[in-house]
Amino acid sequence: MNRRSFVRNAGLATAGFAILSPSQVFAQQQKVRLAFIGVGLRGQNHLDNALRRSDVEVVAICDIDDRMLQMSLDLIKKSGKPTPQIFKGDPSAWKKMVALKGLDGVIIATPWEMHTPMIIGTLEAGIKYIGTEVILGITMQDHWDVVKAAEHHHAQVMMMENVCYRRDVMAVLNMVRQGLFGEILHLQGGYQHDLREVKFNDGKEPYGHGVEFGEKGFSEARWRTNHSVHRNGDLYPTHGIGPVATMIDINRGNRFVSLSSFSTKARGLHDYIVKKGGEQHPNAKVEFKLGDVVTTQIRCANGETILLQHDTNLPRPYSLGFRVQGTKGLWMDVNRSIYIEGVSPKPHQWEEAKSYLDKYDHPLWKRWSKETEGAGHGGMDFFVLHAFVESIKRKTPTPMDVYDAAAWSAITPLSEMSIEKGNQTVEFPDFTGGQWMYRKNDFALNDQY
Amino acid sequence: MNRRSFVRNAGLATAGFAILSPSQVFAQQQKVRLAFIGVGLRGQNHLDNALRRSDVEVVAICDIDDRMLQMSLDLIKKSGKPTPQIFKGDPSAWKKMVALKGLDGVIIATPWEMHTPMIIGTLEAGIKYIGTEVILGITMQDHWDVVKAAEHHHAQVMMMENVCYRRDVMAVLNMVRQGLFGEILHLQGGYQHDLREVKFNDGKEPYGHGVEFGEKGFSEARWRTNHSVHRNGDLYPTHGIGPVATMIDINRGNRFVSLSSFSTKARGLHDYIVKKGGEQHPNAKVEFKLGDVVTTQIRCANGETILLQHDTNLPRPYSLGFRVQGTKGLWMDVNRSIYIEGVSPKPHQWEEAKSYLDKYDHPLWKRWSKETEGAGHGGMDFFVLHAFVESIKRKTPTPMDVYDAAAWSAITPLSEMSIEKGNQTVEFPDFTGGQWMYRKNDFALNDQY
Repeated sequence: MNRRSFVRNAGLATAGFAILSPSQVFAQQQKVRLAFIGVGLRGQNHLDNALRRSDVEVVAICDIDDRMLQMSLDLIKKSGKPTPQIFKGDPSAWKKMVALKGLDGVIIATPWEMHTPMIIGTLEAGIKYIGTEVILGITMQDHWDVVKAAEHHHAQVMMMENVCYRRDVMAVLNMVRQGLFGEILHLQGGYQHDLREVKFNDGKEPYGHGVEFGEKGFSEARWRTNHSVHRNGDLYPTHGIGPVATMIDINRGNRFVSLSSFSTKARGLHDYIVKKGGEQHPNAKVEFKLGDVVTTQIRCANGETILLQHDTNLPRPYSLGFRVQGTKGLWMDVNRSIYIEGVSPKPHQWEEAKSYLDKYDHPLWKRWSKETEGAGHGGMDFFVLHAFVESIKRKTPTPMDVYDAAAWSAITPLSEMSIEKGNQTVEFPDFTGGQWMYRKNDFALNDQY
Repeated sequence: MNRRSFVRNAGLATAGFAILSPSQVFAQQQKVRLAFIGVGLRGQNHLDNALRRSDVEVVAICDIDDRMLQMSLDLIKKSGKPTPQIFKGDPSAWKKMVALKGLDGVIIATPWEMHTPMIIGTLEAGIKYIGTEVILGITMQDHWDVVKAAEHHHAQVMMMENVCYRRDVMAVLNMVRQGLFGEILHLQGGYQHDLREVKFNDGKEPYGHGVEFGEKGFSEARWRTNHSVHRNGDLYPTHGIGPVATMIDINRGNRFVSLSSFSTKARGLHDYIVKKGGEQHPNAKVEFKLGDVVTTQIRCANGETILLQHDTNLPRPYSLGFRVQGTKGLWMDVNRSIYIEGVSPKPHQWEEAKSYLDKYDHPLWKRWSKETEGAGHGGMDFFVLHAFVESIKRKTPTPMDVYDAAAWSAITPLSEMSIEKGNQTVEFPDFTGGQWMYRKNDFALNDQY
């Protein structure tokens, strides 16, 4: 068995594990020793969930921002857990942290552009389980580099895509697996979320603070907004693609084949600046490259199509815009409705989805609903950390692995490329090197954890 | 003024017309003399609307199906109007009809593939106003041929796209014109309508009648279904594109620039045959080329994007899937909701669209709501015939003209081409020959009729 096949096939090993009851699972062994690179607001969320667990020890945390470190220490103190080692002071402090002996896993929650070097550096330090916040890398090369590094080091890189664990999404996944929609044909998802405040508020002052883009800094308004200035594509595809990719077994018997993206003109961010700060505000001169609505189509090897939308610069209600459609019916989240032929009482009439979502509530949600309380993002964040920790304890692959992370996240550079080339359709690389034809489907069906 | 510029610029002449009150408009002159090619179920709808008007004389009707002719004669008798001349018996009977002296206009409601030859034949017979049911032609060449023939004959060819006159669509158009959505950026529409019964029911017998595709015939199950057997693309784009194209002034300061289409595998029609007729039914052997869900993206010269969906082979509730989105907010029809920044009471929360649709009810709907009662498709059909008849009376261009018809309908062959080429993005032809930059916007703003 070569390195690549270890990472790719190790999922099969899970079949050998007995199904344990929750209390046994939580108590079965030595604690999982975790370290955290980046304990900003998002990192603190994962930290908080780790602190709630009896089977995790927070060994070390690292950040460049003292205020965030202090907030994290307060959290830890409140939890009654021991104070971890602190790494800080310069942007490469994380390298010293990941060199600590005895770490079982590292969680990365830093600005997007830091993920790839931090993942690779952590792999090189010998860590075998890495959980990274969403967006694996910026360029196509980043994605290949992470995949090759994970294979080389026989390690698991899990992108912590929490929406895969949203309760309605998992109920729909359950319905898909049970054949309620028939053969799946078309899926939609996206990230439609008015981020104008996030993009122009540095967490300390409201809009008008005068941050110049290009200036270095680690508040979201400083780093995230730069991507809107310089890039045009679907900058944030994973919340939309993760759940639907899972439903059609991408990288496990199916794969993304090609992609094209179309983008509107860019108006929303400039309008917002002028509305809030006036024509004379220094940011009113900034030319944003990111089109306000970016729509991407993907064709899959098994004949399905996927539609993704990225819409973060305009006033709008939040919606991930899911649609799951097969030969027997469809679900949409924007109207909270479902239609299943022969099941729905009135032909061609929507039904409220709620009773289906309750009936098909996923076994994992049934098992862990108590633990999800207060875990962030309606409980999704519990599961994403839980899956990571349980995978470490069981020495199994993570349910979402480096090939998923690469395929989902590579939509960004591919969509940029498509738009740059006049909306041309581009080929989707196969990060599994052909293994998608043989890999088994364990995601979420595996209701052991 | 050359021929082309007559057709293109004649719209300007409408500015010279006084605004007349409704009763004056209906009574002002000699009756408009119309003839009908095709009086099947759809043609009878237009016929019925013509018979309701005091300003129209139905001079002649033509069909190859005696049953449809008899139904039409019954309609006419019931209306108390004089019996028209009947043309029938062979597939070219319409040619004799359009050669009648004194016809003001001809309405065509026949299978899609007959539209182009009938339009061109009618133009060659000297008729100056032609109203055709939707789908201008099959191939790209068909579309060019009709445009060139209309220019050559200084004639109006109006595609009778009724959804442009749907009450909510016109209210939203009114909101767009009044700037409620700000600058328009992204639009969606489509034709999402379970046509499985229509495709397999010949109007006489229920499913199982044993019609073999390829067999000639004029019931919808005979002709329409053949397109699903042999073609893969957005076969029916005009209900989705017409309304949204109007909102962003396509062919009047804007144009479609490029297009790409993605298609799912084809499963729905075969499944339906097997479900209704069993594996042994002769139609179970048919291989359908039309993907069940076809999604098309269009980029526009002024930086907007349009998304269209064609979904006619699967069980689903009817939905044209409209979305109209600008810098200030958006409307969607699937959830009957709207959000306008600074107007909607709760930030980032959908409001029911109804109060907006009432408030911005289009002036044409206010004026003619009484006349729309019983006119078919919720009143839309009144307007589409009304616009045609009033244009004849005023000797003006029709509000939707041959360039609109060509651009909207050409989406079909272009989407076939894109799919055939592996979803490549294809250039959209400019049927106006550059005149889109100069043409004025009179559609629907012109509330004289």
